[in-house]
Amino acid sequence: MEGSSVPPSSSTVSRTALLVLRVLTFVFLLIALILISIDKESEVLENGDRLKIKFTDLQTYRYVIASIVIGFAYNLFQMVLSIFNVVSGKRLINGDFSYQLDFFGDKIISYILATGAAAGFGATLDVHSAFSDFIGLPFDRFFNNAKASASLLFAAFLFTAVASVYTSYALPKKASLDSSTS
Amino acid sequence: MEGSSVPPSSSTVSRTALLVLRVLTFVFLLIALILISIDKESEVLENGDRLKIKFTDLQTYRYVIASIVIGFAYNLFQMVLSIFNVVSGKRLINGDFSYQLDFFGDKIISYILATGAAAGFGATLDVHSAFSDFIGLPFDRFFNNAKASASLLFAAFLFTAVASVYTSYALPKKASLDSSTS
Repeated sequence: MEGSSVPPSSSTVSRTALLVLRVLTFVFLLIALILISIDKESEVLENGDRLKIKFTDLQTYRYVIASIVIGFAYNLFQMVLSIFNVVSGKRLINGDFSYQLDFFGDKIISYILATGAAAGFGATLDVHSAFSDFIGLPFDRFFNNAKASASLLFAAFLFTAVASVYTSYALPKKASLDSSTS
Repeated sequence: MEGSSVPPSSSTVSRTALLVLRVLTFVFLLIALILISIDKESEVLENGDRLKIKFTDLQTYRYVIASIVIGFAYNLFQMVLSIFNVVSGKRLINGDFSYQLDFFGDKIISYILATGAAAGFGATLDVHSAFSDFIGLPFDRFFNNAKASASLLFAAFLFTAVASVYTSYALPKKASLDSSTS
């Protein structure tokens, strides 16, 4: 009996790594959300008129924001579950369902974040070019901020994709353990 | 010994389902590739000049094509492996590596297809709006064909995402079986 000097089990290491990934995702999504929500710029046309642009002017940015909010809510939920688990040593949600929730949750949310980031990049790149080349209004600051937001969203996607590898490995091991006891 | 009347095992069913998913992905990617490669349109400006647009004019469409080609090559490779497996009853690639190849392959390729489709939709939607609203050249046929290509690419992503669920379930079961024999 060595007490506290026992090395942590691999499942404790994975659970801690997962929690770190979720916290990172949460923070990156929060900054991405702030960046894109406050993003606006106005430029003066040749005739003296002002043209303003803000995130609601691009349909794609609404999807970007929706994907951030969905990812944010999911990670908040998972963090509450993880912290409850670490503090109390018990799981709020038990059994196979808990592993399936992690597996499908991480998988679906990682796809939502990936598509949000990709749509954001795609729209930003080519609408920026169209505005610069054809309209003569580059709106550089606006589009650069949008690109920064999409980059943070992409990083959040990468964290979730790594979490999804963890929870993919965790799922059927548990399932095969369950089937051997039933 | 009932010979041919023995029902197929669940692993045979999954392997057949996987092959069907890969064939569907392959076909959808092929049509998506053709649609976007031949996509071009020209419109007449007010001053009588012609403005032509084709897929190379949008940076995002190059990424869309790259994602289709990568998905295409991966599915061709997997289909060759599957057909060899079905015909000969042997696996060209054996052991844990084969399961990891399926798992990481499907996972990474599904992300590439998802980002390709999302970037294609994002750029199409907002560049189309910018051209219609600010330049007065809608290029409707061009952007609608691009949208059709992105839709097919999105369907191919969905097939690959389902395949990825299969190969996620397959991976650690095999790994835990191996660890119990070592």
